[in-house]
Amino acid sequence: MTKKIVLRDDEMPTQWYNVVPDLPGGLQPPLDPETKQPITPEKLGRVFPMSILEQEMSTDRMIDIPEEVLDILKIWRPSPLVRATNLEKALGTKAKIFFKNEGVSPVGSHKPNSAVAQAYYNKIEGVKRITTETGAGQWGSALSFATSKFGIECKVYMVRVSFDQKPYRKSIMQTFGGTVVASPSNETNIGRSILEKMPDTPGSLGIAISEALEDAATREDTKYALGSVLNHVVLHQSIIGLEAKKQMEIAGETPDVIIGCCGGGSNFAGLAVPYVPDYLEGKKIRFVGTEPASCPSITSGVLAYDFGDVAQSTPLMYMYTLGHDFIPPGIHAGGLRYHGMAPIVSAMVREKMVEPMKLHQLECFEAGVLFAKTEGIIPAPETCHAIRGAIVEATRDLNEPKTILFNFSGHGLIDMGSYDRFYNGELHNYDYPEEEILKSMANLPKI
Amino acid sequence: MTKKIVLRDDEMPTQWYNVVPDLPGGLQPPLDPETKQPITPEKLGRVFPMSILEQEMSTDRMIDIPEEVLDILKIWRPSPLVRATNLEKALGTKAKIFFKNEGVSPVGSHKPNSAVAQAYYNKIEGVKRITTETGAGQWGSALSFATSKFGIECKVYMVRVSFDQKPYRKSIMQTFGGTVVASPSNETNIGRSILEKMPDTPGSLGIAISEALEDAATREDTKYALGSVLNHVVLHQSIIGLEAKKQMEIAGETPDVIIGCCGGGSNFAGLAVPYVPDYLEGKKIRFVGTEPASCPSITSGVLAYDFGDVAQSTPLMYMYTLGHDFIPPGIHAGGLRYHGMAPIVSAMVREKMVEPMKLHQLECFEAGVLFAKTEGIIPAPETCHAIRGAIVEATRDLNEPKTILFNFSGHGLIDMGSYDRFYNGELHNYDYPEEEILKSMANLPKI
Repeated sequence: MTKKIVLRDDEMPTQWYNVVPDLPGGLQPPLDPETKQPITPEKLGRVFPMSILEQEMSTDRMIDIPEEVLDILKIWRPSPLVRATNLEKALGTKAKIFFKNEGVSPVGSHKPNSAVAQAYYNKIEGVKRITTETGAGQWGSALSFATSKFGIECKVYMVRVSFDQKPYRKSIMQTFGGTVVASPSNETNIGRSILEKMPDTPGSLGIAISEALEDAATREDTKYALGSVLNHVVLHQSIIGLEAKKQMEIAGETPDVIIGCCGGGSNFAGLAVPYVPDYLEGKKIRFVGTEPASCPSITSGVLAYDFGDVAQSTPLMYMYTLGHDFIPPGIHAGGLRYHGMAPIVSAMVREKMVEPMKLHQLECFEAGVLFAKTEGIIPAPETCHAIRGAIVEATRDLNEPKTILFNFSGHGLIDMGSYDRFYNGELHNYDYPEEEILKSMANLPKI
Repeated sequence: MTKKIVLRDDEMPTQWYNVVPDLPGGLQPPLDPETKQPITPEKLGRVFPMSILEQEMSTDRMIDIPEEVLDILKIWRPSPLVRATNLEKALGTKAKIFFKNEGVSPVGSHKPNSAVAQAYYNKIEGVKRITTETGAGQWGSALSFATSKFGIECKVYMVRVSFDQKPYRKSIMQTFGGTVVASPSNETNIGRSILEKMPDTPGSLGIAISEALEDAATREDTKYALGSVLNHVVLHQSIIGLEAKKQMEIAGETPDVIIGCCGGGSNFAGLAVPYVPDYLEGKKIRFVGTEPASCPSITSGVLAYDFGDVAQSTPLMYMYTLGHDFIPPGIHAGGLRYHGMAPIVSAMVREKMVEPMKLHQLECFEAGVLFAKTEGIIPAPETCHAIRGAIVEATRDLNEPKTILFNFSGHGLIDMGSYDRFYNGELHNYDYPEEEILKSMANLPKI
């Protein structure tokens, strides 16, 4: 039996798929927090290059991938589609479980798919320096790699809890030429003010975004890049699902359930959105987004206009949110510690196209260890959430012969410190942080 | 241009290539240290299963890969062949540089190629527990992974300097169910006696082998597995070169130079030996084996019968050696810290088929950083030696349009601690340890 479907370089998609024009109910535009009116490209242009903004606003269904971007993606793409036969056997399920292995990239996750594109567009517009935030460290590594390919400087604000948990991530960014600092840091006003109030905070993606934005807004030569949430990131990640569709066709399979873990939403959406046209044509496909119970934006958040960051420096985005000043517990899936959710994924949740599934970290690590023992690849803690979701789906009814496709968003070789703590019994589950969330919800901007 | 040649599952070789019958001058048999006569399979059978010994002694040119082994190899194999176009550009060379990316395996290196086969043959002979040594930690991880697939216990003696440098390796082995201890350990007689004499020793592969052998020899349910050096390991690793040949043909290229780093010799030989028949037919192919200047067995060793381990518990093997009790400096390419060299590679050196190239660790780390920045993959410190070798070859004459093929034996994501020390200026080169080597050479067994 075929274990793995690979594509040749020349079978790699040469266009991205933009789901926005196909989304039932459409998207609400991002608002200028000062005017409460749709934000102008000019204003966004202070931190983003124009070609990125065009993609952010685009209603074209297909967008060409530049040759220079394809050339770099080909270092590791197309990524393999693998059938998790050994996991199936261990579960005793009749379900077929496929996964798209995004762990084969230079930094070990799907993140470079967008980093390379973003670095390219910044380059052609003459940008010399890019700032960004990183949670698990994957995005910061990816952008450090991508900017090094185009001779752009890269400054990364890394959420403190991940900075401390994953010292190797810092060295990886340094190897590619990136500069990393723990966030909140002393290098920005927002960082200093938070450190003053909460010197021991684990940090959050919301804080790190604020710092990176402040840095970019105060330097002429600098733009900002975001690794998830925004439409153009989902666009760049659609290559995952476009490849997976081709590969599933070669395998002669169509997925009944598509699963991904959701932090900002980009890896899940990247796999899922190319299947939206099939869904709209009536094919029975379920989309399941898994998220940590400790940061359950699509399970327990509200759909509302909110800021993407703590300092309220982003436009207002219409998304599921727990409130922009919510700081999630220091769980080990740092990439899932985000208060909001991509507007595209939020719209799919609103339309009941996406089913949220919330999970606790211990059951996710257990799933990750089982996956490692059966399929041989140690998953990142974030990816463990997708695997647990796949296991839940595959074991609801062991005799149901359904086909599951999940996104293996990244390997966990840099996360072994977290596994150590799991083995030593030092990790525990976090209850739904109700009080915290109610507090942050009260601070939602009034529109 | 094609960046990367991938093969489908069904294009994976289904037979290994055994170079032994094709080796000019043949191999000298391993000797029983007591009788100085060729060792009997019965005696070796105390620590190895019979089917492994048959492969060790085999003169068949092609040997079938069992279906069960193929099924597991397909998790990551066939591995990609990549053209290092960006590195070529950075060097300004007219040489074409290809690399076989063995870093895509579950543990990040070529080692599982043999681990899976060895675990399988142990399984079918009813073995319940396997002991082994590991230098960089790659082999121990690979065997932990492979044994987990067959329900066999795994005990790993890990060279102390690597144990301390790479804490994540321990967690990886633990994830797959392996048990790891730093070597020399208190768990064996040889370990205790060395610790008594040298409590601060960094350890060596030679010591770790002794411990693993002692453990296996003293337990009925236990056999031993070696991750390099022996003929059957080279046989299993030949899949690298067999795939690479197919891929180079698809690319329309034939290599002028084939390069690999040499510790015990298995990754280099795995890539090189399938090209031996072409060499013997008169094709102009150069084989270059790179090794650390601090442990230069094929550059500065002698070809002689020697033990594979410190405790003199292995058969005598005819190989290039620095003396079995030579303990190399604690360089960061732990997988290259071995006093001897695979008899197959040694024979190729003797026949002037293989050119040795010795390198210092700083120039190798520099090469690794350049490779990461250009090709996006951070190499293991061992692999940096192959990359430096490829750079030397590609820059001898920038205008010579030769084709270089090297083995990218593994990624360095678990070795970031070593990169940190490199960036901090804490690493230095080691001179050729002449006095130490003369001392250990004096202890070569008299035949």
